[in-house]
Amino acid sequence: MIKRYTIRTKKEVELIDITREVAGAIAEAKVEQGIASVFTRHTTTAVFINEMESGLLRDYLTLLEKLAPPRAGYAHDRIDSNAHAHLRSMLLGSSVTIPVLEGKPVLGTWQRIIFAELDGPRERSFLVSVVRSREWSR
Amino acid sequence: MIKRYTIRTKKEVELIDITREVAGAIAEAKVEQGIASVFTRHTTTAVFINEMESGLLRDYLTLLEKLAPPRAGYAHDRIDSNAHAHLRSMLLGSSVTIPVLEGKPVLGTWQRIIFAELDGPRERSFLVSVVRSREWSR
Amino acid sequence: MIKRYTIRTKKEVELIDITREVAGAIAEAKVEQGIASVFTRHTTTAVFINEMESGLLRDYLTLLEKLAPPRAGYAHDRIDSNAHAHLRSMLLGSSVTIPVLEGKPVLGTWQRIIFAELDGPRERSFLVSVVRSREWSR
Repeated sequence: MIKRYTIRTKKEVELIDITREVAGAIAEAKVEQGIASVFTRHTTTAVFINEMESGLLRDYLTLLEKLAPPRAGYAHDRIDSNAHAHLRSMLLGSSVTIPVLEGKPVLGTWQRIIFAELDGPRERSFLVSVVRSREWSR
Repeated sequence: MIKRYTIRTKKEVELIDITREVAGAIAEAKVEQGIASVFTRHTTTAVFINEMESGLLRDYLTLLEKLAPPRAGYAHDRIDSNAHAHLRSMLLGSSVTIPVLEGKPVLGTWQRIIFAELDGPRERSFLVSVVRSREWSR
Repeated sequence: MIKRYTIRTKKEVELIDITREVAGAIAEAKVEQGIASVFTRHTTTAVFINEMESGLLRDYLTLLEKLAPPRAGYAHDRIDSNAHAHLRSMLLGSSVTIPVLEGKPVLGTWQRIIFAELDGPRERSFLVSVVRSREWSR
């Protein structure tokens, strides 16, 4: 099953917890065991998994700012001044996979699925795809 | 279905658009809904998804050069002088997953699947695996 | 099929070869063709694929130390002094996908599946999920 979610981001750079949406799609797929893939459809966003503690949220953004600072003489900025957002997206990645067990994502205590807006605010969308394992393995 | 593609890279560092090959494998798999995984079989290459604009292509490589410069006193370089290529591969990753709908990869307008040669030129190969979701979800 | 493995790490930062465990789970799943996902359940660990040469192992850690040095004034460190481990996990990622063929992971000659302990030593766990492709594709 594939489910598409739309979100309206509010800031230029923003980290949004999408764990509930992903868990909802997995529950709807009624898959006993399998894999879920979360995929963003944009080249200036990313998806990753980590803790959502407020200090850490600032630390993630500070590191991205350090590794790929905005408007640092990029070739792409002559066309569109968002090369840094593409570069940050390249470092973080466009997709994650998560194991599914008994209709739920198997996440550790502190793991949250995070959608990274890197060139907002905009309307964005991401997809959750769920595939099941063989029945005999239940 | 798993399909293997071979490519001959032409430069030491090169970013190659493999979207057409991946879409071809997905079409051949005749999967209505599911997940495709694109996987490189080498430790000095990577796969990622982003825009292929010519300025950006230079920016991606400049960032990799900055984060993992060549021959910067690496321990591995005493054996083989390509530690920087392994490090860049570690940062970018060996695989991506992409949702499949109606026999096609669901990609955003600017998204292209990019094979990164980081220690070429060489003959390289990558694999596309396609798995389907449950029928009842169509 | 989903299989959970527990490992006891021995150092603060440690790279552990889990290829044998992953191959074991794939063999047990008896999947002719498909995809395996390897997923860590912790926010201060990561999973990636690359070569395990001893010099390279030091180079990987040196790069992580450079990109996200410990205790560099992070906001999260006021709560728990391991922000650098979360940041390194964000850069490396929590999951990888690997093609499966004839009950085996399709890995290149030098590719090993690596579990990265970034804030140990601790007891850790990771999951291997295997899904198969359609039969007609065999």
